[in-house]
Amino acid sequence: MKIAVDAFGGDNAPKEIIKGCRLACDELGVTPVLCGNRDIILKTMQSENISQSGMEIADANSVLSMEDEPTSILKEKSDSSMAAAFRLVKAGECDAFVSAGNSGALLVGATMILKRIKGVKRAAFASVFPSATGPLLLADMGANSVCKPEYLLQFAQFGCEYMKHMHGIESPRVALLNNGTEPHKGQQLQQDAYKLLSESALNFIGNVEGRALANGGCDVIVTDGFTGNIALKTYEGVGKMMSEGIKDVFEHGILTSIGAVFVLKQLNDFKKKFDYKEYGGAPLLGISSPVIKAHGSSDARAFKNAIRQAVEYTNSGIIEKMSSPAEN
Amino acid sequence: MKIAVDAFGGDNAPKEIIKGCRLACDELGVTPVLCGNRDIILKTMQSENISQSGMEIADANSVLSMEDEPTSILKEKSDSSMAAAFRLVKAGECDAFVSAGNSGALLVGATMILKRIKGVKRAAFASVFPSATGPLLLADMGANSVCKPEYLLQFAQFGCEYMKHMHGIESPRVALLNNGTEPHKGQQLQQDAYKLLSESALNFIGNVEGRALANGGCDVIVTDGFTGNIALKTYEGVGKMMSEGIKDVFEHGILTSIGAVFVLKQLNDFKKKFDYKEYGGAPLLGISSPVIKAHGSSDARAFKNAIRQAVEYTNSGIIEKMSSPAEN
Repeated sequence: MKIAVDAFGGDNAPKEIIKGCRLACDELGVTPVLCGNRDIILKTMQSENISQSGMEIADANSVLSMEDEPTSILKEKSDSSMAAAFRLVKAGECDAFVSAGNSGALLVGATMILKRIKGVKRAAFASVFPSATGPLLLADMGANSVCKPEYLLQFAQFGCEYMKHMHGIESPRVALLNNGTEPHKGQQLQQDAYKLLSESALNFIGNVEGRALANGGCDVIVTDGFTGNIALKTYEGVGKMMSEGIKDVFEHGILTSIGAVFVLKQLNDFKKKFDYKEYGGAPLLGISSPVIKAHGSSDARAFKNAIRQAVEYTNSGIIEKMSSPAEN
Repeated sequence: MKIAVDAFGGDNAPKEIIKGCRLACDELGVTPVLCGNRDIILKTMQSENISQSGMEIADANSVLSMEDEPTSILKEKSDSSMAAAFRLVKAGECDAFVSAGNSGALLVGATMILKRIKGVKRAAFASVFPSATGPLLLADMGANSVCKPEYLLQFAQFGCEYMKHMHGIESPRVALLNNGTEPHKGQQLQQDAYKLLSESALNFIGNVEGRALANGGCDVIVTDGFTGNIALKTYEGVGKMMSEGIKDVFEHGILTSIGAVFVLKQLNDFKKKFDYKEYGGAPLLGISSPVIKAHGSSDARAFKNAIRQAVEYTNSGIIEKMSSPAEN
């Protein structure tokens, strides 16, 4: 399997991206195709002592930065590493695409170059959260600020397939993110989406509040991209603040207690449970080829896990299933 | 100072509410006026060995439950403990009102019985978060699912006064909760509110993402009540899950290490920092008398802190200032 990789996307590119590809190549047996300036990639490999064996390079001249307009991928940045990666997937030379770069450009590129699956109204970024009752998918977490109720229904359908095939959940419980559990709650979108979801064949369990992202009790939560983004960022912010605060307490405390080393092991297990680096990236649901958005601050391990996710998504058959109207 | 209290509002009413009033009476020197069924209040005091000294009771026959329609406070539940408390404040017999009960009914009662300050378009629930850089006010966190840009401007003005007078912040930094920092981000509401806030005399620092609730860097964050509710509940959910997870790790670990008791002390300090019970309740900004919504699951200490907040809000002069157009 060949995975197109944007070697110049993300805060730690290209070094950590290349390292992550090395890990993926060694551990997963896939062929990463590093898109970007060949000289810089080779120089980075040399200085970091990374073997190129089993990896390919697709030369691209420019880099699409976080500051670039999303649509620039189709225009002035059509020679960027991200655009080059999209073209490799489009041409069938790669099976999937992983990038830690500009999300907006990734969405535009995926929609305009790879295209949505026929019948899919909008693509959605999904994110899998480590809730108390197990992994839980939230969509949309940022692709569409403004949504129609029927988009949310499609996010739910796609999210269910994802949780079925990627996390082995037989009949995923679908919930609508809302400001209360009663059916009449929310803005017009939520009220209309509640009705649509209720009437669908999905296992819709009703509205959930923001705390469900941590508490769990459902497998797929749908919302518009604006609200999903607020929830995701709030989740990440609190998680990070508390992890760091606890770490401070611990590292100070440990000086007073050599025995606390036992606790430290467990603390690390606990932290790992809530570490997005373990969870890979955000799949762009609804696109005709697998596209995974890795976290912007991905290190090698996080990026490797995003590649692993792309491999599993490619193997899952989800896209084929969603592309066949008879199945839905 | 007399504080009207809904003795039958909240998950732990009336016991913890009465206990909280006892603490407030002893520690803050105020007179709590317990609204609700006199017999049950007296019986609870007796069985829990709580002295009535310094506290008053205002008899009320019914209880407005969490399941009751918010507007029932004006109709079939106009004889409830919550309605009775509102009437005491309206009549000038009490200075402020604290309740851990039905938020919707509290909003309806405050708006229809106490009324908004003249010129205030909508009342907003505010919540003060313990961010990494200090306390931070979020409004609206649930009073108005759908907002107009000018409401958000007023929430910001009110929030600034609150942070000035209650937390001593000279020139509060105001931010707009959004799905990105660029000015064009968000739905129509955010785009329009950004413009209004930019043109105002407030110290507007621009858009912030959800992680600002934990990271801080600003003093007042405004948003519509739908989004605010999602952010608040997500924050609480993650905070609670992580606190409990850490506690588990610790209590297991402590068995292996008697020395870890030193760490436990610091852990408690850390947890206290993020404990909503320390922070009191949510003020209902824009109403002509101080109304504080205590957390539904308040215990005695949390409720006492909500009363303390009501006392400080009453003394702050914020309502007088916001009621005088010349000052704004």
